Amino acid sequence: MNLKDYTDTMLPAIENELQHFIDHLSEPRTHLFHDMLAYHMGWTGEGAGRAAQGKRLRPLLLLLPATACGKDWKPALPAAASIELIHNFSLVHDDIQDYSDMRRGRPTVWKKWEMPQAINVGDMLFILAQLAIFGIKDHFPADIVLKAGEIIQKACLGLSCGQFLDISYETRNDLSLEDYWPMISGKTAALLSACPQVGALLGGADETHQEAWHNFGHYLGLAFQVQDDYLGIWGDSALTGKSTESDLVAGKKSLPVLYGLGKHGPFARRWLDGPIHVEEVASLAGQLTEEGARLYTQQMADQMTDLALQNLRMAAPKGEAGEALFELVQLLVNRQA
Amino acid sequence: MNLKDYTDTMLPAIENELQHFIDHLSEPRTHLFHDMLAYHMGWTGEGAGRAAQGKRLRPLLLLLPATACGKDWKPALPAAASIELIHNFSLVHDDIQDYSDMRRGRPTVWKKWEMPQAINVGDMLFILAQLAIFGIKDHFPADIVLKAGEIIQKACLGLSCGQFLDISYETRNDLSLEDYWPMISGKTAALLSACPQVGALLGGADETHQEAWHNFGHYLGLAFQVQDDYLGIWGDSALTGKSTESDLVAGKKSLPVLYGLGKHGPFARRWLDGPIHVEEVASLAGQLTEEGARLYTQQMADQMTDLALQNLRMAAPKGEAGEALFELVQLLVNRQA
Repeated sequence: MNLKDYTDTMLPAIENELQHFIDHLSEPRTHLFHDMLAYHMGWTGEGAGRAAQGKRLRPLLLLLPATACGKDWKPALPAAASIELIHNFSLVHDDIQDYSDMRRGRPTVWKKWEMPQAINVGDMLFILAQLAIFGIKDHFPADIVLKAGEIIQKACLGLSCGQFLDISYETRNDLSLEDYWPMISGKTAALLSACPQVGALLGGADETHQEAWHNFGHYLGLAFQVQDDYLGIWGDSALTGKSTESDLVAGKKSLPVLYGLGKHGPFARRWLDGPIHVEEVASLAGQLTEEGARLYTQQMADQMTDLALQNLRMAAPKGEAGEALFELVQLLVNRQA
Repeated sequence: MNLKDYTDTMLPAIENELQHFIDHLSEPRTHLFHDMLAYHMGWTGEGAGRAAQGKRLRPLLLLLPATACGKDWKPALPAAASIELIHNFSLVHDDIQDYSDMRRGRPTVWKKWEMPQAINVGDMLFILAQLAIFGIKDHFPADIVLKAGEIIQKACLGLSCGQFLDISYETRNDLSLEDYWPMISGKTAALLSACPQVGALLGGADETHQEAWHNFGHYLGLAFQVQDDYLGIWGDSALTGKSTESDLVAGKKSLPVLYGLGKHGPFARRWLDGPIHVEEVASLAGQLTEEGARLYTQQMADQMTDLALQNLRMAAPKGEAGEALFELVQLLVNRQA
């Protein structure tokens, strides 16, 4: 089996498992509440389908490591669903916090049902995620279930701290490159490091290997985010078209922007002067390249990818699932959109 | 020891335990985040102190039952802290959802730090609550920790469903008395029923007694809320002073209001005609009394209190802690503010 065979088998089982938990709300009185969650998960409403569901990357990054440790992935499904529900809880709240109108090509939950209900939709996704962790108890001893729960809770702690930093950075102009890593370590890498760690725990790996799996997820998360930041300025949809997707227009303090601000050159002077307009995007991206931000960002992405691969090798994944994981890393870090 | 002796001993230990979990955020980078949570918990900022902290009713309703089952309450402290953190998570989000400016006499978190950070403060309180559950694992076997976690998660499920109903009721004019109970069963009673149930579980009670403890908390929660609804219309601060604290002005669909709407009489006609002004509060409260709402609400409060006491007797609490619980029930249901 290669990566595609694994995802073709695992993805329907993941959707099924997610639906099982959201069906806790299927009684008549909470029918509309169920609809809101089902809409966000990409199952119902206009534009429902694979694109609206997202990649389900986190569950795959839990189930593949469990398999690569030599165990059947099916008993680990509730834990995989738990982390995907946590990811989606954070997206629903993030969209409110950022006042984002669109998510995966569709109106966000708060745009459709207003802010009060959207906060509650996020809360419910998080509550269902907690219930989902307990779903593995029929197949694993109680102390392993607790360990899995603790890994996931600590990841959530990091996620929320990262979110705090991200929001607080919006109004700060004294930031440097050093401020970048703690923020994305929380916001992006915390949950991604929990995925393979829990997968390895449920796959029966020892503590040393669990740590390597954790570090693999951590550096993959950093690589993924740095690549995202790269594409946010020099990617096709950021540079061409209407350029509205450029992080420069959004005012996002991404890695290239923090690099540029630290140079105190023409880019930094323009940035501090006020919001950047669509017409300026191409020339400012060029200015950032000239000041060295593009090369630096690419180097950081490569460095984090190397560290992810090093740790993946130390985790010693077995068989075809192990090979599929190397394939998945390449796919993620080489993506162009 | 009587109730006062118990609370005098338990309350400082509860505050200490809560601080222990919130201190997860005490590193320099998240110092402001820590401040936001400490402010909400009533420990810092203007007006900090006992009144700003609230009653800590839920932890007491967990620790007293554990004691009344014959066990030491101290090992149960992390579970008590967990439920108090959940309660406070729901308050922070509720204040955003209701656009409430004040909570326990002080500006709400979102008024002080704006909506995006306030959503994240609520999220973090909930995450810390999950971590807190695991805090009991040094003193209890793993399967008991899991059981406690499951009881708490199911209560959260009910809490969030109740919140969904509460928000959706705001824009509905087709509600009847039947719609009241599922809403407050979730919003108020779910967490209150988990408190004595977890206390009894950690106190070593058998399943039958655990159920009686659960039902005690459930009916106490209903009695508490009905009494709250009573005071919201006929309480001193609702009727006198500036009457701005009347539920009639807030447009809250409380039990007396739903009763009055079901009568389709003068009260219902006035209610459907638009927002109620402060000057009308006294006469409309009188109208509700005339239509039978006051008597009905008082009867319901008494009925729920009787059911709570019946279940408390079935739970067979032992010793002075048991007596303190009967004392606590009387204090709660006879309160005038």
